[in-house]
Amino acid sequence: MTDQGIELAVSTVIFALRPHPTTGETTLWLPLVRRIRQPHEGRWALPGGPLLPDEDLAASARHTLERTTGLSSSYLEQLYSFGAVDRSPQRVVSIVYWALVRSDEVAGAVDGENVQWCVADEIPELAFDHDGIVQYALNRLRAKITYSPIARFFLSPEFTLAELRAVHEAVLVKRIDPANFRRQALATKTLVPTGSQLTGTSHRPPALYRFQVTSSDRNPR
Amino acid sequence: MTDQGIELAVSTVIFALRPHPTTGETTLWLPLVRRIRQPHEGRWALPGGPLLPDEDLAASARHTLERTTGLSSSYLEQLYSFGAVDRSPQRVVSIVYWALVRSDEVAGAVDGENVQWCVADEIPELAFDHDGIVQYALNRLRAKITYSPIARFFLSPEFTLAELRAVHEAVLVKRIDPANFRRQALATKTLVPTGSQLTGTSHRPPALYRFQVTSSDRNPR
Repeated sequence: MTDQGIELAVSTVIFALRPHPTTGETTLWLPLVRRIRQPHEGRWALPGGPLLPDEDLAASARHTLERTTGLSSSYLEQLYSFGAVDRSPQRVVSIVYWALVRSDEVAGAVDGENVQWCVADEIPELAFDHDGIVQYALNRLRAKITYSPIARFFLSPEFTLAELRAVHEAVLVKRIDPANFRRQALATKTLVPTGSQLTGTSHRPPALYRFQVTSSDRNPR
Repeated sequence: MTDQGIELAVSTVIFALRPHPTTGETTLWLPLVRRIRQPHEGRWALPGGPLLPDEDLAASARHTLERTTGLSSSYLEQLYSFGAVDRSPQRVVSIVYWALVRSDEVAGAVDGENVQWCVADEIPELAFDHDGIVQYALNRLRAKITYSPIARFFLSPEFTLAELRAVHEAVLVKRIDPANFRRQALATKTLVPTGSQLTGTSHRPPALYRFQVTSSDRNPR
């Protein structure tokens, strides 16, 4: 709290891909934290906390990510700052980041006592304006995957076109025609064949690709 | 100042188009404010101030715009939040907005005692990290004008294709081929002929257009 009467918080929307609990299909998930004090005690909320005096904004978001999931992010970007006067009983301005975490890393992550991973499109009603913030982050992710190679942050450095398409399908929640996807993905010129094939598959193993990343595509911070 | 030791400020980068003082060509300008206290006393800085307890973020940005220029903005959007620990001797987190102001409105605006309009690409060295913030805002404007009809916020509701092209040329600081521009602009489907022509011109008066704005193109707040 401040002389201005305003608390400054940093929250992080963390996305990962995991199988849906009933359909088994690859689906977007995010971790939520149960509030252990008022207001909204007992409600689920985005992980975060007050900005510390000696912490940069992105460092704060990264610490939240590590504290919540035990993971480091492969992608972290500032999303938006939410500061409506009435979003909390006491004035809080939240600077929100969003992060993408690799699926194979999340497989080893377990829910903590007050942390639970939820399907992003099936979350319970959250504390404060956090429902709207999750929707804002989903909109950003779904827009950005259509024009930027951020799908790579969900993938291993080398991947098949089928794996890349599966990420797009999971994020956009729709089927994508394999032939069209292949044509469009290769037309972007950001995909480079590694010259290797997926091993362990028997007949006609699929080719592996990696992203050729230009400086403007790098993780912004 | 706060128990967290952090001040929360809102600043606004305000762009308008005016003739360049030496070349006379239409150019991007922005108003700067001279600091009248330490730190950086006497230096030019972006207009802004502490967030008031009962003010929403966009309202704070709008009040800064009105106070600085005497104008209301046709376009106001959150740009980014800057919060590096060392950006000011005392910790300040600045939530920055950017605004576009119509050229004909700016024509009547005069510089105040501590306010001065400057050519955006020729500003003096600013206080704090404000040079970087101006560059960030210029990058956003120059990217966004290529995929979104924001040029309309610099124009009257009805305009000729030559006027629209002049806005793009001024923002992007480059010549654009009239025939290519015409073809690409009409291909976006957002331009609608009004059925009228520019009056006051003698021979073959140019057609007037307006933007057909969909909900997703509206001013975000």
